[in-house]
Amino acid sequence: MLNVGLSGCNGTMGRIIHDLLLEQENVQVVFGIDIEPERYENDYPVFTDPYEINVDCDVIIDFSKPENIDHLLDYCVNHETAVVIATTGLSEAQEAKIIEASHKIPIFRSSNTSLGVNVLLDLVKTATRLLNDNFDIEVIEKHHNKKVDAPSGTAFMIANSINEELNQAMDYNYGRQGNHMKRNEKEIGIHSVRGGTIPGEHTVIFAGPDEMIEIKHTALSKKIFAEQAIKAAEFITHKEAKLYNMSDMMHAN
Amino acid sequence: MLNVGLSGCNGTMGRIIHDLLLEQENVQVVFGIDIEPERYENDYPVFTDPYEINVDCDVIIDFSKPENIDHLLDYCVNHETAVVIATTGLSEAQEAKIIEASHKIPIFRSSNTSLGVNVLLDLVKTATRLLNDNFDIEVIEKHHNKKVDAPSGTAFMIANSINEELNQAMDYNYGRQGNHMKRNEKEIGIHSVRGGTIPGEHTVIFAGPDEMIEIKHTALSKKIFAEQAIKAAEFITHKEAKLYNMSDMMHAN
Amino acid sequence: MLNVGLSGCNGTMGRIIHDLLLEQENVQVVFGIDIEPERYENDYPVFTDPYEINVDCDVIIDFSKPENIDHLLDYCVNHETAVVIATTGLSEAQEAKIIEASHKIPIFRSSNTSLGVNVLLDLVKTATRLLNDNFDIEVIEKHHNKKVDAPSGTAFMIANSINEELNQAMDYNYGRQGNHMKRNEKEIGIHSVRGGTIPGEHTVIFAGPDEMIEIKHTALSKKIFAEQAIKAAEFITHKEAKLYNMSDMMHAN
Amino acid sequence: MLNVGLSGCNGTMGRIIHDLLLEQENVQVVFGIDIEPERYENDYPVFTDPYEINVDCDVIIDFSKPENIDHLLDYCVNHETAVVIATTGLSEAQEAKIIEASHKIPIFRSSNTSLGVNVLLDLVKTATRLLNDNFDIEVIEKHHNKKVDAPSGTAFMIANSINEELNQAMDYNYGRQGNHMKRNEKEIGIHSVRGGTIPGEHTVIFAGPDEMIEIKHTALSKKIFAEQAIKAAEFITHKEAKLYNMSDMMHAN
Repeated sequence: MLNVGLSGCNGTMGRIIHDLLLEQENVQVVFGIDIEPERYENDYPVFTDPYEINVDCDVIIDFSKPENIDHLLDYCVNHETAVVIATTGLSEAQEAKIIEASHKIPIFRSSNTSLGVNVLLDLVKTATRLLNDNFDIEVIEKHHNKKVDAPSGTAFMIANSINEELNQAMDYNYGRQGNHMKRNEKEIGIHSVRGGTIPGEHTVIFAGPDEMIEIKHTALSKKIFAEQAIKAAEFITHKEAKLYNMSDMMHAN
Repeated sequence: MLNVGLSGCNGTMGRIIHDLLLEQENVQVVFGIDIEPERYENDYPVFTDPYEINVDCDVIIDFSKPENIDHLLDYCVNHETAVVIATTGLSEAQEAKIIEASHKIPIFRSSNTSLGVNVLLDLVKTATRLLNDNFDIEVIEKHHNKKVDAPSGTAFMIANSINEELNQAMDYNYGRQGNHMKRNEKEIGIHSVRGGTIPGEHTVIFAGPDEMIEIKHTALSKKIFAEQAIKAAEFITHKEAKLYNMSDMMHAN
Repeated sequence: MLNVGLSGCNGTMGRIIHDLLLEQENVQVVFGIDIEPERYENDYPVFTDPYEINVDCDVIIDFSKPENIDHLLDYCVNHETAVVIATTGLSEAQEAKIIEASHKIPIFRSSNTSLGVNVLLDLVKTATRLLNDNFDIEVIEKHHNKKVDAPSGTAFMIANSINEELNQAMDYNYGRQGNHMKRNEKEIGIHSVRGGTIPGEHTVIFAGPDEMIEIKHTALSKKIFAEQAIKAAEFITHKEAKLYNMSDMMHAN
Repeated sequence: MLNVGLSGCNGTMGRIIHDLLLEQENVQVVFGIDIEPERYENDYPVFTDPYEINVDCDVIIDFSKPENIDHLLDYCVNHETAVVIATTGLSEAQEAKIIEASHKIPIFRSSNTSLGVNVLLDLVKTATRLLNDNFDIEVIEKHHNKKVDAPSGTAFMIANSINEELNQAMDYNYGRQGNHMKRNEKEIGIHSVRGGTIPGEHTVIFAGPDEMIEIKHTALSKKIFAEQAIKAAEFITHKEAKLYNMSDMMHAN
């Protein structure tokens, strides 16, 4: 039985993990951390700060807020507890602190724990490498009309992966209206479509002479982030101190 | 037998019409007009200016340049010749002159003579009318990397059609990068993808609560503009003086 | 305040309507009908059979099973109660009984109450009419891997709508493997893709010479059936006895 | 300067290669082979059978008919001439003869020389490997209404590549109509859409729990097969005797 501490247990992602673990026999939540500990009735204790934790666990899964990360890392290093950090929007200083902590404990870090998105990233990198300069690359992402940031963080992950393969030679173009010139060869177009309740779509287009390749990921619910986070927790528990990511887990099989 | 004068006969669209009419038994080209009359060997006379025409015809099909239109209209009015004008980029003064001339001769005017695009326009207007305010509308167009204007003229035709149905209540948004706010209900997003040799795609997305409708047109070659222009020539010959368009022809059947 | 009787209140669709009506101020459930009356705790009485109903209502919304329909219709005719029947899989005899009853009470009948699907049907009929014989029509539907019927009922609704426009001239082709002949002009191809948890997609392709039109509907949840059923209940209450459908409601605005 | 013998020079693909090589400075056709040698006026000799060739060349590119292959292979082995064989529909005996000949001369063999299709195959294999058993795989291919075989040869190439990764555990399902059962986990659905003049589309869908990945190739013209065949000719000339394929060339960079 794997004993999990769930950081952000009363947030959206925390609840999804909570629900998924109710159905799973070999993994259980033994405590939660949340700034609103009373929001839901849980059958495990919920602490407002990592410093208050007085229950042992094998691994912590964190889907919380950036302001929670420093205390959480301190706790994990002090208690030699493995941790899966899936929170988005961390500062560079926090990402650096994670790297440092990973010399002492196993840390799994990903700001997008969907299996599909990570496979997409892998495929896009391969396509960029195999297709030659004659192929123009464009990214289209679609999300619901309540999303405030554009382009999406995942669209940037994709564009940055492509750019890495191309030695950072590409600029990003977010809209061509009024341009009146041919497409620049050294650009990746990124387009942000917003409407209705679209959960999330990312398409990468490689358009070459007389042929095209398109690679598309469609998310239907936020459950896709929870499943791999749980697998990541199982993956790093009792492993050596190191920084792990989705690619490590995907290629471990 | 329908005798056609072909204005812009040595340009790209002129050649396509030329080739299509070689295969057709009941329509023939009896003269051409082109600023480069010697560019191809034609088995009909090619004049550099409408004023020089000394051959009779039933109807003129025009895929030329804006600078040719005024002389052409004068000729058609003076000789009571029906004319199909498919040239793009006309000035407002020229469009007004066309309307005026249509009181004296039958004129078919369309800057996009593809059957599919015109059906798309019809469908998009119906969808806009039937779907309620809860549906957000976005337009994505894709073209080859040599196209200099963005968004495409057809994308504007589509957005304008939608806006007409919605009493001009919508603004156009050509790129959302760095916005940091929810989608504005009163906007139509228009996205211009450029790459490779894509001949032309236009997709209209209606994204509502938990469902979406998408209407998409794909062009595979410029032949689609030629076929309906020839049909338009047959459609207006011997009709009464009036301004006709694709919608009239589509709904005449 | 509109008082609704909810037939099938403890089934999947019944629960979705129940939840939606909790948020709505001008419509409330005053009783339910369900073969498992104790399955959920409701704050209204739930009867196992329409004959037991002893509460008044303005209109009944029915998402139940075919075996329930005959008793329900009897009740509605006897009590002069308007009824929205959205149950699928009714026998021809039951459909005939609905038509007969609609001479005495207002009945709204639809086996697919999604607004989007009904707009799709409308658009597909228009496209079939406007595009000529040169366009081949194919339907692709995609659903989750647990769906047992293929093609989907909605795919048949679409194909039948097209066939009606074409004077029933078309046969349906469900798979071409091993054919070794050109496409038959007088057929509609229907393709059933199954996989994962896809909630439901229907695409109609009109493929002509050098151009294509595609019309696609994507369902993201079953809520889309509930919303229009509630609107239909409001639409028919206090209307004259008649058989109404989604098209009537869509074109009433 | 690379001197090329062009087998099938007066066929569709032969003409495309002929046209492409007119624009290229470092590669030229020095003779052709074709059963209709007089069909076009060429500025190089055209032989009706490989046995008649009396001109030297560095490499032969073959887009012809299966009946031509045996004589061609004999010629190439006898004259130690490298050969690119892109003809489709060869018998097993002929494929075996190619393998045998490749011990003596460099042979490049591919029945689909499109760069995009071969990148698609590579991506599909990777996705099959990285995604787990929870993902269902379906292939949709779309072609013009004159195509007689279904599914397309490329669709089979794709399905076979997937099946190879999965230890041949999958059956192919070409149509589900009337099934009345859940999707079989051990199948790949293959769907053949036919209509209009669609040059060729292949989409592979990986549909898992709450997410999907789609990989799609679109062909816009037959030129895509010619360009890589020319590159293949350059790739194998003066290489050691061996059987080469598209994957070797793609991964050589």
